Amino acid sequence: MAPKQFPLKGYTLPLTPKGQSSVVDPPPWYYGGEVMQLVFRTDEKRAKKFIPPPLEIGPEPGKGIVWFAEWVSVSEANPDMAFLNPERAMYRECVIMIQCSFRGEPGYIVPYIWVDNDFTLIRGFVQGFPKKLGRIYQTKLSELNPKIGGKRVGAKIKGICEAHGERLVEGSLLFTRQASPSELPPVRFYLMRHFPNIEDPAQPAVHELAISEVSQVRVADIWTGDADLKFFKSAVEEIADLAPVEMQGGFFHSMGLTINGGKVIHKYR
Amino acid sequence: MAPKQFPLKGYTLPLTPKGQSSVVDPPPWYYGGEVMQLVFRTDEKRAKKFIPPPLEIGPEPGKGIVWFAEWVSVSEANPDMAFLNPERAMYRECVIMIQCSFRGEPGYIVPYIWVDNDFTLIRGFVQGFPKKLGRIYQTKLSELNPKIGGKRVGAKIKGICEAHGERLVEGSLLFTRQASPSELPPVRFYLMRHFPNIEDPAQPAVHELAISEVSQVRVADIWTGDADLKFFKSAVEEIADLAPVEMQGGFFHSMGLTINGGKVIHKYR
Amino acid sequence: MAPKQFPLKGYTLPLTPKGQSSVVDPPPWYYGGEVMQLVFRTDEKRAKKFIPPPLEIGPEPGKGIVWFAEWVSVSEANPDMAFLNPERAMYRECVIMIQCSFRGEPGYIVPYIWVDNDFTLIRGFVQGFPKKLGRIYQTKLSELNPKIGGKRVGAKIKGICEAHGERLVEGSLLFTRQASPSELPPVRFYLMRHFPNIEDPAQPAVHELAISEVSQVRVADIWTGDADLKFFKSAVEEIADLAPVEMQGGFFHSMGLTINGGKVIHKYR
Amino acid sequence: MAPKQFPLKGYTLPLTPKGQSSVVDPPPWYYGGEVMQLVFRTDEKRAKKFIPPPLEIGPEPGKGIVWFAEWVSVSEANPDMAFLNPERAMYRECVIMIQCSFRGEPGYIVPYIWVDNDFTLIRGFVQGFPKKLGRIYQTKLSELNPKIGGKRVGAKIKGICEAHGERLVEGSLLFTRQASPSELPPVRFYLMRHFPNIEDPAQPAVHELAISEVSQVRVADIWTGDADLKFFKSAVEEIADLAPVEMQGGFFHSMGLTINGGKVIHKYR
Repeated sequence: MAPKQFPLKGYTLPLTPKGQSSVVDPPPWYYGGEVMQLVFRTDEKRAKKFIPPPLEIGPEPGKGIVWFAEWVSVSEANPDMAFLNPERAMYRECVIMIQCSFRGEPGYIVPYIWVDNDFTLIRGFVQGFPKKLGRIYQTKLSELNPKIGGKRVGAKIKGICEAHGERLVEGSLLFTRQASPSELPPVRFYLMRHFPNIEDPAQPAVHELAISEVSQVRVADIWTGDADLKFFKSAVEEIADLAPVEMQGGFFHSMGLTINGGKVIHKYR
Repeated sequence: MAPKQFPLKGYTLPLTPKGQSSVVDPPPWYYGGEVMQLVFRTDEKRAKKFIPPPLEIGPEPGKGIVWFAEWVSVSEANPDMAFLNPERAMYRECVIMIQCSFRGEPGYIVPYIWVDNDFTLIRGFVQGFPKKLGRIYQTKLSELNPKIGGKRVGAKIKGICEAHGERLVEGSLLFTRQASPSELPPVRFYLMRHFPNIEDPAQPAVHELAISEVSQVRVADIWTGDADLKFFKSAVEEIADLAPVEMQGGFFHSMGLTINGGKVIHKYR
Repeated sequence: MAPKQFPLKGYTLPLTPKGQSSVVDPPPWYYGGEVMQLVFRTDEKRAKKFIPPPLEIGPEPGKGIVWFAEWVSVSEANPDMAFLNPERAMYRECVIMIQCSFRGEPGYIVPYIWVDNDFTLIRGFVQGFPKKLGRIYQTKLSELNPKIGGKRVGAKIKGICEAHGERLVEGSLLFTRQASPSELPPVRFYLMRHFPNIEDPAQPAVHELAISEVSQVRVADIWTGDADLKFFKSAVEEIADLAPVEMQGGFFHSMGLTINGGKVIHKYR
Repeated sequence: MAPKQFPLKGYTLPLTPKGQSSVVDPPPWYYGGEVMQLVFRTDEKRAKKFIPPPLEIGPEPGKGIVWFAEWVSVSEANPDMAFLNPERAMYRECVIMIQCSFRGEPGYIVPYIWVDNDFTLIRGFVQGFPKKLGRIYQTKLSELNPKIGGKRVGAKIKGICEAHGERLVEGSLLFTRQASPSELPPVRFYLMRHFPNIEDPAQPAVHELAISEVSQVRVADIWTGDADLKFFKSAVEEIADLAPVEMQGGFFHSMGLTINGGKVIHKYR
């Protein structure tokens, strides 16, 4: 049955008569936010365990990045959603990335990512981000707060990620100077789209590597500095297997971008 | 690449070296909980809009049921999870069902369902339940609370479902008598498995109807009574399009079951 | 027993050996945040019901203001808390104010205020703000989000406050121009400190009017525009009794201040 | 001004014209719930630091109890609240108790207690419980869940308490046999009512010891067994100072009671 003949509408479930309820709208998706990036290096062997073929270890073996971010995000279908219902357009996230490469092109795989809202959780699954729910807290600098102050040399921010009663990740950055866009690590995601078959758990219905089609990337107000990062032991998550880490600095900046969908670069089957 | 050759493990994302982190474990899934069922009848034309072919209107056109439930759920892979981390094994939900039939066999389609945890949200998408996050509150009767009391003739319970700052559903039941299992409406779900293609929003990667493979269904401690139900206007959800409703009573009972996976009964394409 | 002889420490409960755990630190308290102010006028008689003697109706009878705000707040005792644990230093709030006057000096009484964290909830009770928990959502403008954009003529923001499954307040502002600090309504709070006696519910242990000792007030980046405001019916809150309202515009601005404690201006007994 | 002349109504803030909004109703308060009790012994010196005079160390120095509980609670003023809005009548809590004695009569002081709703948070402050917000998770046994099962020899339950991104307390119980009410440790609370002065942080407006007036206590369905308990290090809470602990067993049972208010037994000043 062609989509035209299927009377319910929506990019994802729920599919409904008017198509207003889909938890995720179709791309393009528009993002604006604040990002703390913490660059680390772990043991190559530890990193490699998280990199499945055909991805290979990257040019800087063991390199990884953690992002703590707060996003405002709307879609082409509902560009006014940040006004209509702010809750449907905001989320925080903590992303773990491990450098890898695909056919010689370096990028990052995302073994873990936590967010705090459903639309971004499901959108993550659609894109290939393995999102789970967590609570993400991040220092907000405040120019007018007499004891905190704004972005400046010496400013300190921290990110904390907790899920199912466990502190999972904690990272911080001490601002030492402003930086230029060219200093930011270029990030290209190799994303794992995966959706189970309901008849046979061993044969996923969808299992493929994808890249996002990104445009209109802008960064502003970039600071760099000394970073710190801790992965905590967990009964559920395997992130402590990435420790110990050695830090290679970090960044804090504003960022905007558009994701126009994605492209499948490898199918597992 | 065969699953054996793919080194990361998990039934869903996140796929990890040890396979502990997958937000959903593979079936079988085991459930135990308390369910309030509210049986309603809406206009046939309104109901029909939510029933996509090849499903057809059921033998009792316009019939629907709302469930408010609190579940404890674990998997075969982690049967001890309710003890190890209770948060990973509990959730509340509010389910909207519309009667339909498939090749002459009556069942229910689920246009809306809200839950309050990530593992059940994603498990819903795998099964074909269009889950979103919400907050679900339900009266807990309490034998020893001097002003509330336990299950008895005259006891009253209410369920409330709220999401993104909107009250969406409110339903209540006044217990009039105990009932037998045979009085409960038989429920068979026709589930819409749907997962977008990342390259073309108009062509989903997965779009099929499935039924769950259910076993070990047990019900206990069944009460029936007078029901009430309200669907509220929302800027996002189309549930108010199911109103007005006429009530046909309701039930409250304990329930246990096992879901062993599912079977695809129709593919849209 | 003098405080020196009482071995446990803390400004509020919990009182502990080291004094680290008190849910609120002693003043001074430092604030920085973003505030949307919505100025309204309701019927004088309706407003008056919320103004207890010795407070009197203000010079602009029926005038009120709603604030939606997001704050970063730390104390003199733990000035680094926004870094050490960001969760302990951030909250959102929705404040309802009704103009009144005390001995001829105009100010505002706060019949309702919702926040989303415990330290600010209890600090509210200490100051005389009748805080309850709610979920407060507010549009975040985003310069770099291609579809949202930053502060500018035509920008629109909305605030939504929900508690116990009920939407309570919704307000919005359409930016029409930048404004100067002198255009902001001067706000002086007349605060109701109240704490029950445990032996006799009819005789509160503390019942007094207080004003806060505020210093270092700074405002920046002020916008004004067309405002809208809705108070919703609730089974618990009496805010709908303030409707209908007529709007007198609104503001959005950054703000910083210090509260050094308070002064009692009237004791009810 | 006598209460009759003060036109706003409520047992606590918010005080309003109709008196519907007070976050806490006046006593009597009615409770029904499920309680896991974990009995421990810590070093006497460690325990003593949490016991302020005139309270003294109890007859079993170093003894303490942790409760994980889920309550349904309503008041005389709104006995139907569990039906009208279930959210306003339910909460979970984790309570830490240290044995002490007052004028020779043994009881318990509560250095820490976490809850997950505002009405119980403020009611705690009124009674003298030093409540903070946390997330409390507890295993729910489920007779009909094929892998979990109901209360029985060998059943295991766990409680976890997390606040501000830190796991604080974890406790568990392995059921070994049913028990009689007489085996439960008698619990009498010595409660610290404390409310700051707004003018002088060093001189609280209220600082007194109180006991609750409890009646209609009923317990049922009591199990006892082997207990385990962990207090975690925290940047905020001093609970780890109570470790290491030695366990003396535990209990799980239903409980109902009425609190009719309280009585002040000591004033600090």
